[in-house]
Amino acid sequence: MSTPKTEVPAVSADVLARIKAVVGDAGYSEDPARVDPKLTEWRGKWKGHTPLLVMPKSTEEVAAVVKICFEAGVAITPQGGNTGLVGGQIPFGEILLSLERMKAVRDVAPTDDTMVLETGLSLLDAQQIAEKAGRYFPLSLAAEGTATVGGVISTNAGGTAVLRYGVTRDLVSGLEVVLPNGEIFHGLKRLRKDNTGYDLKQLFIGAEGTLGIITAASLKLFPIMNSRATAIVAFETAQKAIDLLVRAKQETGGQVEAFELMGRYGLSLVLKHIPDTREPLEGEYPWFALIAGASGDPDGAQAAMERVLGAAFEEELIVDGVIAQNETQAAEFWRLREDHSAAEKAEGAAWKHDVSVPLSRMADYIEEGDMAVQAFLPGARLVAFGHVGDGNVHFNVIVPEGMDAAEFNALRDEGAKVVHDLVHKYEGSISAEHGLGRMKTQEALQYKDPVAVEAMRAVRLALDPKRIMNPHVLF
Amino acid sequence: MSTPKTEVPAVSADVLARIKAVVGDAGYSEDPARVDPKLTEWRGKWKGHTPLLVMPKSTEEVAAVVKICFEAGVAITPQGGNTGLVGGQIPFGEILLSLERMKAVRDVAPTDDTMVLETGLSLLDAQQIAEKAGRYFPLSLAAEGTATVGGVISTNAGGTAVLRYGVTRDLVSGLEVVLPNGEIFHGLKRLRKDNTGYDLKQLFIGAEGTLGIITAASLKLFPIMNSRATAIVAFETAQKAIDLLVRAKQETGGQVEAFELMGRYGLSLVLKHIPDTREPLEGEYPWFALIAGASGDPDGAQAAMERVLGAAFEEELIVDGVIAQNETQAAEFWRLREDHSAAEKAEGAAWKHDVSVPLSRMADYIEEGDMAVQAFLPGARLVAFGHVGDGNVHFNVIVPEGMDAAEFNALRDEGAKVVHDLVHKYEGSISAEHGLGRMKTQEALQYKDPVAVEAMRAVRLALDPKRIMNPHVLF
Repeated sequence: MSTPKTEVPAVSADVLARIKAVVGDAGYSEDPARVDPKLTEWRGKWKGHTPLLVMPKSTEEVAAVVKICFEAGVAITPQGGNTGLVGGQIPFGEILLSLERMKAVRDVAPTDDTMVLETGLSLLDAQQIAEKAGRYFPLSLAAEGTATVGGVISTNAGGTAVLRYGVTRDLVSGLEVVLPNGEIFHGLKRLRKDNTGYDLKQLFIGAEGTLGIITAASLKLFPIMNSRATAIVAFETAQKAIDLLVRAKQETGGQVEAFELMGRYGLSLVLKHIPDTREPLEGEYPWFALIAGASGDPDGAQAAMERVLGAAFEEELIVDGVIAQNETQAAEFWRLREDHSAAEKAEGAAWKHDVSVPLSRMADYIEEGDMAVQAFLPGARLVAFGHVGDGNVHFNVIVPEGMDAAEFNALRDEGAKVVHDLVHKYEGSISAEHGLGRMKTQEALQYKDPVAVEAMRAVRLALDPKRIMNPHVLF
Repeated sequence: MSTPKTEVPAVSADVLARIKAVVGDAGYSEDPARVDPKLTEWRGKWKGHTPLLVMPKSTEEVAAVVKICFEAGVAITPQGGNTGLVGGQIPFGEILLSLERMKAVRDVAPTDDTMVLETGLSLLDAQQIAEKAGRYFPLSLAAEGTATVGGVISTNAGGTAVLRYGVTRDLVSGLEVVLPNGEIFHGLKRLRKDNTGYDLKQLFIGAEGTLGIITAASLKLFPIMNSRATAIVAFETAQKAIDLLVRAKQETGGQVEAFELMGRYGLSLVLKHIPDTREPLEGEYPWFALIAGASGDPDGAQAAMERVLGAAFEEELIVDGVIAQNETQAAEFWRLREDHSAAEKAEGAAWKHDVSVPLSRMADYIEEGDMAVQAFLPGARLVAFGHVGDGNVHFNVIVPEGMDAAEFNALRDEGAKVVHDLVHKYEGSISAEHGLGRMKTQEALQYKDPVAVEAMRAVRLALDPKRIMNPHVLF
């Protein structure tokens, strides 16, 4: 369990009393049974503390709470579903402001392809609200039942459909934000085009709660596709998988929704540890991809998948493949991919790295990365898998067989440096989709353009002169 | 011709000499034959003046020039192709910094679907570089032969393919920017996913040159579509056109690339003033739409267009329509749309408004807007047309027959207020795609959220404490 190097000053009883008066009895809690789960990172990596859990029920209440804190110089950590992976949502002395009571659906406008939601709603809620309106909201990730709209915006989450629909940033058309001084930024426009000054909402997306509290969002909706196809395909090399991805995008005009790479070793762990899983193809191939495509044409997706895979097989780009015959089989394919995390966990301690590199360099990166990790820690087992279609790979290293987990974990930071130095060399990112939080902020300083860091600090200071918003997260 | 209310202080001879020393003889000009065209807005709306035209040939030269200006507190106006419509590119005493010598193609990476271009290249150059690499760069607008990459990014230009591909912001994956203090922000990553702090590049997109000088950009590339279809369709009402658009998006899974609305009166002006044009359908209908679709499937676009229009005709959503049989005919359809500006000009003086409203309110907006303009100036002739698929309409008002142009133009600002007040009531934007520039900045203050304006000013001050970058543009 990590402990932060930095703590914030204690909060006066007067400030706490004023905050309580604003939100009323239902709007705060000091009951450990209620508060503790929000202080504990879900994998047990961080356990924080807070003088008060505040749960405002409206934007005006959020604004009033923030204004009190701003005037008193009291720090705040906003929290959504507490599913973050880098500790950005855990307070260490900050007021903990949860959006859990802000769940109003403010507007659903299918003609405009937008919906305006308060940010305490879960991502699953958002998907279902869209579906009820005859539309598709494409952001999807493992934690979607718990992760909130505010949380995924604040971390600019990725997920499984980035290849076609983009990251969260690409799905937001407007925001309402309580700024660090307690004023309300009214930016909930549902316009596709508005060129009247800086696009401020972009600052808050991915700001990990450091520039304000997002209270509502206007989200983009998309057509529900009329056909879908899912396949698992085998390759001799990772590069051939990438070559197929490039071809598939071209030959279908961008109909590929997901392209998830899996290596032999990761798959073998899934087959070993997860009940009711089986080898998806007859041979034991070194690389696999799960490919999902969708089309507006009623039979388009299946036809396109057959067309692309047929040509790839002819040209020996792929060695085998199977297209799911029904939704059950498609779900089985997806489970092989999604069970990677559980299988890794069952196998033993692991260092996880959420990195991205340009697609053209991905195969080289994986190969050189494997060698670098081996050189650093012989016997370490690499599981590389994930959203390779976005240039994003979960590059995870499992403890060598027989090595003590504590000894392995003690090497974690050095190991991360090996992996991240190489990412930097390949012009990649050390956090593709999880953010920096408390975990990676200091480390990121080694790799970021110092001019960019300076500019970020200047912008932050301009909007939050007392640095009260999530002060130990980001630069 | 407008004259600005504000001038910047004179620039000392010493500063000019130091700038000249940095860029060398080829890097500046005081020759009126060379400088004057850059001081004159292309429609003659503004004629500016400058102590020096500077044309650096590298990012380092741009940085050195900006650093000199920063230290001396000397203002700069950056300029691309000088095709802007709101006067943001015309200096009134500022140093005029042209990117015309920065035309290097730094990188083309089709596997990564990106290209890195210096920003003095034209938009047409960008399209052609993409095409040579077997990819599609979708940004397209009338001035593309002259408009530069830097200019379209600085104004977050829209164009004809926004419906499917988004505005310029959606097409940029990285930027290199010389900041107001002369430091270089190195943000040219070609990653789809990178969550390591604020996405600073978003600030510079659409900033109209007020936060720095964009010297290079990493742009996203897309697959070349395998089939295309173009149609002209007639409707009884504007609302029915919007209903068809909504259906077409759903039923094709988002394959619609352009949906351009045209009214009877605008079309009649095209037929009257532009040679070799003819009524596209047999009847003289009140509303038309030009619809373009594209698909990755070799026969997909035509089939989808036939499917959607067939069903719409059955349900009496459309009254007539024709699908182009070949590219020549498709080009003819597009000319009817593109000649609207020339036809308006031939008819007489006009007030132009580039506005957007939510799609669901577009038809009501056009109707109420027409009535409001009539009430303000009886006999005024409304030409409403444009990218209605993006909620964007060019809402132009032509001088009443027989009225003196000068008298009409004297009412321009009052007329704009009538149009823009209504846009504001409809939760729209008074500048959908052209920006604010010198023309609309003051006016926009009436409609913008004051908290947003304050935040923009704070961010600007943080990055440009001496306000040297395009000081009289934006807030």
